[in-house]
Amino acid sequence: MQGTAQTSSQPATAYTPTDRTVPTRSANRAAYDRELVHAILDEAYVCHLGFVRDGAPVVLPTLYARVGERLYVHGSTGSRPLRAAGQTDPGLPVCLTVTHVDGLVLARSAFHHSINYRSVVVHGVAHDVTDPEEKRRALDALVDHVVPGRAADSRPANRKELAATAVIRLDLDEVSAKLRTGGVNDEPEDLALPHWAGVVPVHRTYGTPVPDPDLTPGTELPDYLEAR
Amino acid sequence: MQGTAQTSSQPATAYTPTDRTVPTRSANRAAYDRELVHAILDEAYVCHLGFVRDGAPVVLPTLYARVGERLYVHGSTGSRPLRAAGQTDPGLPVCLTVTHVDGLVLARSAFHHSINYRSVVVHGVAHDVTDPEEKRRALDALVDHVVPGRAADSRPANRKELAATAVIRLDLDEVSAKLRTGGVNDEPEDLALPHWAGVVPVHRTYGTPVPDPDLTPGTELPDYLEAR
Repeated sequence: MQGTAQTSSQPATAYTPTDRTVPTRSANRAAYDRELVHAILDEAYVCHLGFVRDGAPVVLPTLYARVGERLYVHGSTGSRPLRAAGQTDPGLPVCLTVTHVDGLVLARSAFHHSINYRSVVVHGVAHDVTDPEEKRRALDALVDHVVPGRAADSRPANRKELAATAVIRLDLDEVSAKLRTGGVNDEPEDLALPHWAGVVPVHRTYGTPVPDPDLTPGTELPDYLEAR
Repeated sequence: MQGTAQTSSQPATAYTPTDRTVPTRSANRAAYDRELVHAILDEAYVCHLGFVRDGAPVVLPTLYARVGERLYVHGSTGSRPLRAAGQTDPGLPVCLTVTHVDGLVLARSAFHHSINYRSVVVHGVAHDVTDPEEKRRALDALVDHVVPGRAADSRPANRKELAATAVIRLDLDEVSAKLRTGGVNDEPEDLALPHWAGVVPVHRTYGTPVPDPDLTPGTELPDYLEAR
């Protein structure tokens, strides 16, 4: 695996596996390639953020954005994980997971049914972003991550809104991807069974944008939405 | 809230809120209605399962199915959370979260950008399913939850496959839904800004099923896939 003996300032081409990023099973589905991880992260915008509260796990869906080797999550300054990240020294241990479902794999045997998917799991410690410039850039990235080009075409947050928003940062360091691609893996003795077998592709699609009823007449749909 | 003083054997129409299912913010988005929770759970098949390992949170995507007031998750007997649920007495504390993304909400202000979504968060303790009958029913439910009607149209698991598969159960008891629906909530003073505002609907769609190359010639696409 790359990445352990890198000495230049260039990031290694892969994340270094650790005990908790090497799966106990289906190790062939695990990947540490940096470009692959970035591609999976950049294609989604909702993650599931896990943290521990009073000794028990909590998993909440939330928006995120990637800027280089950092992920950002934002929320109200009153929300539990964001408050915890700000109050906890040295930060809040989290696990941030992103999953794309690409297909339903229907095998002849119930046992070999599966899902084609791509996921990324990031382990680390989330820190409150206190630098105003970094916070502003992170908030722009969060808007642009959902709709590229949108941050420049909206009113930026004012002082009051910035004060009401907390941003936490999670470095991409202990990271793994896991993927299942391809077709059906039935047992050879099952191939002649009469059941249909194959893959049903799954996609995320976008419908026709619905304008706000109060939209100023004549406001056209921006190019960055036309292209969806 | 319903559900606290129910005395009949009929389940209450709503789950009883607890300290950890009442959000610290956007409480108006929280819901405890049992039918709503079931509908959100039944429309998805991939959840994000959180648990604590060596004091740190872990969040993994996995398939699940609902049978009445129980959720089931399955996996290899070698997988970490399933092993932990079997070994831990009295079970493994988990948080199971399901999220649908329904729309991108583009406000005139960056601050009021949002996502229309429906999510369910289940807190509880997962137990290994040891009863063979319950395990078999859960495995059927897991296949039928992804593709209704499929369990009866596939070869059931044999003894060896059953032995290699672990199933864990999580009761629907400490449960909440959270939703955001509707349009843009801009500040009144922002309404005249020149930025387009509105909602972009997001859907999950299915492509044309791709048959396995080894499919017995003449095997037709089953009705339960035609309908997708």
